Amino acid sequence: MANPLSRIRIVLLETSHPGNLGAVARAMKVMGLSDLALVNPKCEIDDEARARASGAVDVLEASRRFGSLEAALADTVLAAACTSRRRDLPHPAYTPRQAASDMLGLAQSGPVAVVFGSETFGLSNEQLMKCRWLINIPTNPDYASLNLGAAVQVLAYELRSAAEDAVLPLPEFEPAPHAAQEDLLVELEKVLVEIGFHNPANPKRLMPRLRRFFAKAGLEKEEVAIWRGIIAAMKTPNSGHRN
Amino acid sequence: MANPLSRIRIVLLETSHPGNLGAVARAMKVMGLSDLALVNPKCEIDDEARARASGAVDVLEASRRFGSLEAALADTVLAAACTSRRRDLPHPAYTPRQAASDMLGLAQSGPVAVVFGSETFGLSNEQLMKCRWLINIPTNPDYASLNLGAAVQVLAYELRSAAEDAVLPLPEFEPAPHAAQEDLLVELEKVLVEIGFHNPANPKRLMPRLRRFFAKAGLEKEEVAIWRGIIAAMKTPNSGHRN
Repeated sequence: MANPLSRIRIVLLETSHPGNLGAVARAMKVMGLSDLALVNPKCEIDDEARARASGAVDVLEASRRFGSLEAALADTVLAAACTSRRRDLPHPAYTPRQAASDMLGLAQSGPVAVVFGSETFGLSNEQLMKCRWLINIPTNPDYASLNLGAAVQVLAYELRSAAEDAVLPLPEFEPAPHAAQEDLLVELEKVLVEIGFHNPANPKRLMPRLRRFFAKAGLEKEEVAIWRGIIAAMKTPNSGHRN
Repeated sequence: MANPLSRIRIVLLETSHPGNLGAVARAMKVMGLSDLALVNPKCEIDDEARARASGAVDVLEASRRFGSLEAALADTVLAAACTSRRRDLPHPAYTPRQAASDMLGLAQSGPVAVVFGSETFGLSNEQLMKCRWLINIPTNPDYASLNLGAAVQVLAYELRSAAEDAVLPLPEFEPAPHAAQEDLLVELEKVLVEIGFHNPANPKRLMPRLRRFFAKAGLEKEEVAIWRGIIAAMKTPNSGHRN
């Protein structure tokens, strides 16, 4: 079985400071992480990045670039957004400690992403909606401005601590890949419009609530098939779509 | 009662990179820490330090300089050394998680120091011997080179997490100040030489073992008085030094 720490993907969105790229690589390697994904970085891996990476230049050099968050998450079984935002978001929210062992458990089935926004703008609503969980690092309410490298360090530390703590239980189910989950929610929204339950012009909070429901449930592969069947049956009732 | 996080002192020894001073200040403030002690820093609080401190410049500006580790620890009730070293040291060693709640408990009685060595040389044996506990951050055995700011971030995060976790129990005893503990061990060593039990020319591991014994015990104020009495009685037996 693969070391679950090697299945944790750190996803950085639109990073603008090369020093932070280096600090993140070092923070990862020192805790045994190695999978770094850069989505539309606003800077290059330059000398400053390499200097801050110190002995973790290999993690920097092996990082992969993606043109969209969706692409960076496509093969993951869980995407968790690390953010200080919490209110008005439908996601289940955890502290790093609460999330770490479940993330490692899921990582035995496939890559698990932790997504970090840009230094200046954080994560947009649209980006957050691509993620199933929120992770809130506890901070001083009067000054919550955690540096990007420091935030990755805390997450990576919790993951390593959880990995060292105990033999991990195998997950009891096979989680669905991120892309399948996203597709399902898109299909579900469409069919809800089709059947007149959902009005995109006056959406209220329907889709965020449904996302939360699916996120809490922790969608399994078999359940995707079931839901696909249900959606198909919703579209064309009594046409042979049955379980 | 004072917020115990405000009683945690981060002690940096001979720091050489101004950027690290700034990163440490930010790491502290974001978790609600504010007491920063610089022992013989090898660099100045310059523009780079301020840039990396970001909104935590106040912590940098309020930092205090000390000419010796002893001076920075004099009023503390506990000094813990954060280091990757472990073997051959007599100290009790803990992970940050194991140490955090006890440190906060002790911080209700007085300042608690966490000591970090220089970026290049870490902590010397002599410096380690001034500290009662070791804190070992779990790291990748193949690359354990944690950046100074990142190490402070992990410690400060654990302390904040512990502070948020629960109402802290008051310690059941009044811990002795660091200086009183040090003085006691010096007196003890002297008297052990005096009574011919200890040969400084062939010390074996006597004093480290005694330090460990006292560290594990968690010396209380009243116990210092008791031990002082014992030492006095050892020097001049039957001269009226009795409990």
